[in-house]
Amino acid sequence: MKYCFGVDIGGTTVKMGLLDTVGNILDKWEIPTNTSEEGKAILPDVAASIEKKLEERSLNKSDIAGVGVGVPAPVTSEGIVNGSANLGWKYKEVKRELEELTGLRAEIGNDANVAALGEMWKGGGAGEKNMIMVTLGTGVGGGVIIDGRILVGQNGAGGEIGHLCVNYEETDRCGCGNRGCLEQYASATGIVRLAGKKLEKEQRPTILKKEDVTAKDVFDAVKEEDEVAKEIAVEFGQYLGHALANLAAVLDPAVIVIGGGVSKAGEVLIPYIQKPYMERAFFANRNVRFTLAELGNDAGICGAVKLVLGD
Amino acid sequence: MKYCFGVDIGGTTVKMGLLDTVGNILDKWEIPTNTSEEGKAILPDVAASIEKKLEERSLNKSDIAGVGVGVPAPVTSEGIVNGSANLGWKYKEVKRELEELTGLRAEIGNDANVAALGEMWKGGGAGEKNMIMVTLGTGVGGGVIIDGRILVGQNGAGGEIGHLCVNYEETDRCGCGNRGCLEQYASATGIVRLAGKKLEKEQRPTILKKEDVTAKDVFDAVKEEDEVAKEIAVEFGQYLGHALANLAAVLDPAVIVIGGGVSKAGEVLIPYIQKPYMERAFFANRNVRFTLAELGNDAGICGAVKLVLGD
Repeated sequence: MKYCFGVDIGGTTVKMGLLDTVGNILDKWEIPTNTSEEGKAILPDVAASIEKKLEERSLNKSDIAGVGVGVPAPVTSEGIVNGSANLGWKYKEVKRELEELTGLRAEIGNDANVAALGEMWKGGGAGEKNMIMVTLGTGVGGGVIIDGRILVGQNGAGGEIGHLCVNYEETDRCGCGNRGCLEQYASATGIVRLAGKKLEKEQRPTILKKEDVTAKDVFDAVKEEDEVAKEIAVEFGQYLGHALANLAAVLDPAVIVIGGGVSKAGEVLIPYIQKPYMERAFFANRNVRFTLAELGNDAGICGAVKLVLGD
Repeated sequence: MKYCFGVDIGGTTVKMGLLDTVGNILDKWEIPTNTSEEGKAILPDVAASIEKKLEERSLNKSDIAGVGVGVPAPVTSEGIVNGSANLGWKYKEVKRELEELTGLRAEIGNDANVAALGEMWKGGGAGEKNMIMVTLGTGVGGGVIIDGRILVGQNGAGGEIGHLCVNYEETDRCGCGNRGCLEQYASATGIVRLAGKKLEKEQRPTILKKEDVTAKDVFDAVKEEDEVAKEIAVEFGQYLGHALANLAAVLDPAVIVIGGGVSKAGEVLIPYIQKPYMERAFFANRNVRFTLAELGNDAGICGAVKLVLGD
């Protein structure tokens, strides 16, 4: 078996890839996600796209190790989704359905967890088997890899790093209903929120005194040595670094990979997270390596393939 | 293969057991731990005791699946210990040495992690594959089981639940050098510390106004509906319950098992932990079952055997 399909199902598009079994992306394309009628066309569309690609490249199914899939929902270790708001799915036996549709072996995982697996295989965590990935996007997602395998958990909800409580005094609510979730401080939205609170009562001159400050603006200003921006970054990094120190005490990772839109700020981000981490890390976890994600949008299809190939 | 040895090495005694492969304890005994000269006699003593038991029961090595061992130190996935203060060991290839000494397959794990595996197999977590165990003793230990396997981590330091920081304002130091570790509030010692602080300025009458209050005294007083004791239990439970809610967001367990000396207080303990847990748990983790450990001192030898037998 020389090839494997990787599929990353999002609410708007499905990213698809044909990879070889050492992880080279041979082909990459997208199809729209049809979420109408409880997303019933999504898996048939994926299967049809796979058939078309096999034909186009004159490949036999016997050449294909399988189809790995990341979906925006918790996924049990049996490949079952109990509902995905983004896709319109209710209860769905994704693994079984896709195997019937394609005649290929299918392995299904949560998209954030699958992306983490991709980063472990071919990205920032390459060479390691124990990894925490934090994805700083609109929300805070994440994935935990233990001994080369995704930490799936009982309900497929393992790795929900964004919903650690990091501030028991918080009065604003998180989207999940709780108060004080990491997501409220370390996501792009969270950074904007921290900036807003800071700028409300800030007297000093700062690049950030403008309309609609974004997380990117904050880290751009940090690069310009803007003192106010640096203080926002310190606050962001303290919540995230302390949370990661707590996780490391239990997960004992070799590497912590920072991904998502916020990570596009680049290396400037790392010391803001690593310093508070080191202040609070258990002694056994002080040699953890911090690094940025490297695969960008390809992490999902890479990880999906690795899910099929196994350790 | 019908039998397996389970060995739980402590700083004073080595607990040993002969079990069948479904987990019945057929025989149980102890030998002293000889920690002199960097504990060099410990493994030979264990091996000699196994040989003696085989002879005594006229068993052949071909009947034995192996020897599982729990040791009071981090253990890598290769069965290597990089130092154990309690045993006097420096770097030691425990798995290799014991296999050479016994001619049997050996599997080695950290004692708290191995005890957690025992509780999953035959105790409070029986029937589950995703479990957090918290051991409330002199310190706070723990073990995490994911998909039936111990979360070992990169340095063998996985599951160090006692060193989650739960109070960033704490001024007293934990034994590990940090401040605000869970161990400072939820261990037997921690509960005594909480009681001491409370009683210093307490005006109300309470059973606890006496010399040398112990953790047991606190929970005995709780059972007597002593208001002051109940407030100490609330504080204890809040630190522990909130920490467990954070862990559950990432680990997604089916069951949380409470063990160690403090757990001898019994069922009265559970609501004090579960209520704050439920206040802060991520919605996917609200169906977690809380239960007490059931195996007591046998958890180590049971888990050690399960380590050999695998999932």
